[in-house]
Amino acid sequence: MQFYIKPKQKNEILKTLRGLGESFLKEIEEGKNPSVEVPVRTLRNIKFDPKERKIFLGGYVSKRYFLHLGETRRFTQLAGIASLSKKLIEEDKHVSLREAFYILKRTIPGLKKNIVEEQEESNRAIEDLELVINALREQLHMNANKLGAVAGNVVIKDRGDLIDWSKLGSGGWSVPSNVEDIEFVEVNAKFVIYVEKSAVWERLHEDKVWKKLNCIIVASQGQATRGIRRLLQRINYELGLPIYVLTDFDPWGIYIYSVIKFGSIALAHISDRLAIPQAKFLGLTGDDIKKYGLEKHLIKFKEIDEKRLKQIREYEWFKHNKDWQRQFDLMEKMEAKAELEALAARGITFISEKYLPEKIKNGEFLD
Amino acid sequence: MQFYIKPKQKNEILKTLRGLGESFLKEIEEGKNPSVEVPVRTLRNIKFDPKERKIFLGGYVSKRYFLHLGETRRFTQLAGIASLSKKLIEEDKHVSLREAFYILKRTIPGLKKNIVEEQEESNRAIEDLELVINALREQLHMNANKLGAVAGNVVIKDRGDLIDWSKLGSGGWSVPSNVEDIEFVEVNAKFVIYVEKSAVWERLHEDKVWKKLNCIIVASQGQATRGIRRLLQRINYELGLPIYVLTDFDPWGIYIYSVIKFGSIALAHISDRLAIPQAKFLGLTGDDIKKYGLEKHLIKFKEIDEKRLKQIREYEWFKHNKDWQRQFDLMEKMEAKAELEALAARGITFISEKYLPEKIKNGEFLD
Repeated sequence: MQFYIKPKQKNEILKTLRGLGESFLKEIEEGKNPSVEVPVRTLRNIKFDPKERKIFLGGYVSKRYFLHLGETRRFTQLAGIASLSKKLIEEDKHVSLREAFYILKRTIPGLKKNIVEEQEESNRAIEDLELVINALREQLHMNANKLGAVAGNVVIKDRGDLIDWSKLGSGGWSVPSNVEDIEFVEVNAKFVIYVEKSAVWERLHEDKVWKKLNCIIVASQGQATRGIRRLLQRINYELGLPIYVLTDFDPWGIYIYSVIKFGSIALAHISDRLAIPQAKFLGLTGDDIKKYGLEKHLIKFKEIDEKRLKQIREYEWFKHNKDWQRQFDLMEKMEAKAELEALAARGITFISEKYLPEKIKNGEFLD
Repeated sequence: MQFYIKPKQKNEILKTLRGLGESFLKEIEEGKNPSVEVPVRTLRNIKFDPKERKIFLGGYVSKRYFLHLGETRRFTQLAGIASLSKKLIEEDKHVSLREAFYILKRTIPGLKKNIVEEQEESNRAIEDLELVINALREQLHMNANKLGAVAGNVVIKDRGDLIDWSKLGSGGWSVPSNVEDIEFVEVNAKFVIYVEKSAVWERLHEDKVWKKLNCIIVASQGQATRGIRRLLQRINYELGLPIYVLTDFDPWGIYIYSVIKFGSIALAHISDRLAIPQAKFLGLTGDDIKKYGLEKHLIKFKEIDEKRLKQIREYEWFKHNKDWQRQFDLMEKMEAKAELEALAARGITFISEKYLPEKIKNGEFLD
């Protein structure tokens, strides 16, 4: 749990940001060359801990100087983002990554060049700052995408509103891009089902799965956003509820699980802080295909599926796991994938009334 | 308003579906060949009314027979979907298009062939049925995607829950795929702002735009789903509130507006029933670029943008509209597009506190 960042450290973050700016100023006034240490984010510094099954960033650090021909620009971008973040926290406002880019696409008095020209530059500066001051971008008030819905026996407090996730009709609560400030007021649920498809979420919601199984149901559409990952992580760490990941039986669904549990390589610099090592896979398996008679509904692999399967089964965290390798073998043998919606062929509410209760009761999870 | 379908006609739809099945049975028992009349959905039957500025389906109808070598399959698919729909309405359950496909991918006693093999077939059967019994697929309990969020001074009732759109924290209410059954209980808003980006919705929501301007804010991500379009349409037709569409200044944003207002060619068979002819364009314009000093933030056109612009400006409903042609000219001259987020360069809350109030006050809409 060492990597878990508790929410609500606003004052601390603000203090760190101010300290960063003040140290730059002081060094300039003293005629020194300001610098920051930024952990290296290239592949050689991204490691996997096979015991804890966790991606993490190694110890390589590069020092970046203000007065250095090759580094001045990135140093200034970092300072620009830090300054914007300080302003945002002080004014209690948030911006999207795209807005942050436009705000930084401006010149500095005396110069003709913009601080950033492309969004990649501001994004990278945000990633740098996350590492330099050890905070998530959400805590720096910079948000990624908003997506997803949630329902369950939970009452939260957010922006002064008490919100009961069990009383929101067919729609549910729309998950914001940033969940750092929500408070859990009342929780009467035993676990969380996260599902990769909002259509399946609507199935579970209409069938009152969260009520009958006493759980929370969360959906995205495809990959989970950072907002959803942080929501799941907070529920897991702060409330101690298990997270079950419900996906299709295909390399893409398993990758969604992989990112939630282990983190992603693209965001490796932060993934050890977004990962949920205790998450379990509740999605369709090769065994389910037989058990629930879904053979007829298998979808033949395309070349791209085959390729993806080969990549995924070589991931460090799957490579030495017999259970997963067995699933990959089954998939390879079938040369096919299967979707959660195929369960509808067994009955409209089959997934809600048979499949999920049975698998959960028998503890049929993959780890 | 002739095309507007009121919600809550369940009994009527159920009666129609039963009548359809009974007429088939009766004809078979009498030794006749059952048939249905399905309006033709090819381009030659899709028309545009320049006076009412509305896409509609012409009068061509094709008769489809049960006992006919080339038509038996499609006739059976239609009957299969009608039967599923009847069951769903009776049991008060809904399915996604994908679930409907899996449910229909089954044989009939005595036959070895599945009713449908591909989702295109079940989708087409659903579209046929929409026309045959003159109802939206949502009323047949078949849902498309779920996406989007809403906030504002509105209280609705949905599945027995009273939901206050003004008290849902930073997330808002998650819009379901099917809004046919929601009831508007209390509405204290004067208009609706629909925005194509959820990040911009979060901007407006954080800045309390719906409170300050007394409106409702709705977002999707990209194209509006059918759920959102029906929500906007119901608010417009039933509550009489104007719908303002807020998009980027580019062919893609204008197309989003075009679909909401006029309907789409792909869904032309139903678009005259999903369209909102009174919707107005509140998005970025070529004039805004100058007025708000966004020249620096223009994004150079790529070939695909240029091509799309050429297509859009030739649409029947834009072709003879001077205001729109002027905007297209401006865009063509600039050879560039601009995003809503660029307004953040003028100030974090500029869009909420200056841009929107000013444009709405001055009535700077495009029609």
